[in-house]
Amino acid sequence: MTKRSVEILDVTLRDGSHSMKHAFTKEQVRETAKGLDKAKVNYFEVSHGDGLGGSSLQYGLSLVDELELIEVAASVCEYSKISVLLLPGIGTKNDLNDAVKAGAKMVRVATHITEADVAKQHIELGRELGLKTVGFLMMAHMAPVEKLVEQAKLFESYGAEVVYVTDSAGALLPHEVTERITALKNELSCEIGFHGHNNLSMAMANTVAAVQAGATYIDGSLRALGAGSGNTQTEVMVAVLEKMGYNTGIDLYSIIDVANDVVAQYMPRPQEINGSSLIMGYSGVYSSFLLHTEKAAKRFGIDERDILIELGRMQAVGGQEDLIYEVAAKIAHNSSNTHTEAPIS
Amino acid sequence: MTKRSVEILDVTLRDGSHSMKHAFTKEQVRETAKGLDKAKVNYFEVSHGDGLGGSSLQYGLSLVDELELIEVAASVCEYSKISVLLLPGIGTKNDLNDAVKAGAKMVRVATHITEADVAKQHIELGRELGLKTVGFLMMAHMAPVEKLVEQAKLFESYGAEVVYVTDSAGALLPHEVTERITALKNELSCEIGFHGHNNLSMAMANTVAAVQAGATYIDGSLRALGAGSGNTQTEVMVAVLEKMGYNTGIDLYSIIDVANDVVAQYMPRPQEINGSSLIMGYSGVYSSFLLHTEKAAKRFGIDERDILIELGRMQAVGGQEDLIYEVAAKIAHNSSNTHTEAPIS
Repeated sequence: MTKRSVEILDVTLRDGSHSMKHAFTKEQVRETAKGLDKAKVNYFEVSHGDGLGGSSLQYGLSLVDELELIEVAASVCEYSKISVLLLPGIGTKNDLNDAVKAGAKMVRVATHITEADVAKQHIELGRELGLKTVGFLMMAHMAPVEKLVEQAKLFESYGAEVVYVTDSAGALLPHEVTERITALKNELSCEIGFHGHNNLSMAMANTVAAVQAGATYIDGSLRALGAGSGNTQTEVMVAVLEKMGYNTGIDLYSIIDVANDVVAQYMPRPQEINGSSLIMGYSGVYSSFLLHTEKAAKRFGIDERDILIELGRMQAVGGQEDLIYEVAAKIAHNSSNTHTEAPIS
Repeated sequence: MTKRSVEILDVTLRDGSHSMKHAFTKEQVRETAKGLDKAKVNYFEVSHGDGLGGSSLQYGLSLVDELELIEVAASVCEYSKISVLLLPGIGTKNDLNDAVKAGAKMVRVATHITEADVAKQHIELGRELGLKTVGFLMMAHMAPVEKLVEQAKLFESYGAEVVYVTDSAGALLPHEVTERITALKNELSCEIGFHGHNNLSMAMANTVAAVQAGATYIDGSLRALGAGSGNTQTEVMVAVLEKMGYNTGIDLYSIIDVANDVVAQYMPRPQEINGSSLIMGYSGVYSSFLLHTEKAAKRFGIDERDILIELGRMQAVGGQEDLIYEVAAKIAHNSSNTHTEAPIS
């Protein structure tokens, strides 16, 4: 009595790039790719953490060009196929053409949850190039379900074969994942995917909720290596899904081996949930705000967590970093009023 | 619209003793206790990892006598009360009397899931001494629900005010927790608790499932410090339960502060899910088997994971370590047959 199959896509060599400060070496990529191939992972992703073309002063310079890393990974795989991430505005159509020459067989075009329309030409190019083509809606917790469905339908209309709900800040809880995946299953014909982060220690539970609601593509990372508190841990997910009767097609011992014998050996530190990443998940604010928030908190002599939680409440998005100082000033002002004025009874 | 209250019991200074190799110092205990007290945690536990009297060659010698640690913790608390763990056979009634003199206000009497009857006199003593008295059913995944209910009823009949489902191996999945807590809520009148481990990355999801099914006592550990892959992470649990509308009575910032500024500073390494702890959760085998299994695997030239999974299938329990070599021999024999005999077509 085998339940249906689930496609696990491993993002160690892309989301893990954040934890590695974009310093993956060819040797690390080669050994990880070999291990993923041996374990029979269908697709794994290789790109700068912020996608093709991400290597920059703003997003962090890669130690080794991602095209070389894609080539190395593709060269050692007999079974696995390489995916690349592309954020329109960071990566270009040229970058995608180059990645395909280097060996990529899948593209995931990623936009903010409300911005799917910027992905049209990249999705279309992916299909033209014969790639498996995926839409990736980031910061999915920031929009109501109806908005998510609307944006996912745009991706589908452009030709995406899979649309992902991407919990970039690790802010979703299982019942919220169930609600979102169920809505997409009801309203779209393409396959649905889920990408989780562990900021609230819910990556695995969210993943299982997504699968139970009908998602067929699921992201994971070996040893959870990834941004924030890391991703759903691939090798644990294989064990859990197998225990629940799903078919992942991945060999459990081999995937544990590459996690322990390869990735655990090079990762700079274990992924954990610390104070900052917890508050990110709790407030739903993206990591790019963290550094500025610390500075603003110091300047105004307030707790940075108050700023992050207020930014989350306001649904601040990347690019609105100026808001940080406004919010900090307001909190400092209110707090000094509280201290100096008589309480209203 | 506040949902019902949930009592979070912190076990950093008891389950965390395993990760600390039982080497907690007075200073570490003092600072952790201060932080828990400031965050308004009602109860936290201080004992050797294997409970009162656990300091021994077999279970690991404590660096500092647990009675001294209990005294130190109690001396700095204005709000929090100290719990102690007692495994009959390891700890004695004398140990409990001493712990009460040192400041303990709660006892949790722990037995294997099928052995509640050995706890009668200790539960009765706890009540006599005026302690909050709790029954703790360990390795709860190893018995069917009916057995769990039967054993929990024994605890209740002896006078336990709370009975815990204890997922010692981190082997339960959320739907299994729901089933167990629901059965206990239906069949018992006392309060129900849940203690989770993170071997399958499900500690938080299991905890939420337990609360939703009616559990009112929940264990957690700061930075997840505990045996195996660690426990449900206390400070994350406070954030998640608050986000879901439960009232924990614990101050979020203060509990994050003690996790980051105290515990993270002394823990020897972050808690993570590695190959061994994952297989423990997957197979449902207790950690005491790990060391012998490695030796047996080497001797017979086989994969230790095959031994652990077979032991889990056989539901081997502590004390049955001799089984390890029998199982290893059988696996080696079968595997050599497979290699030398012609396949049956």
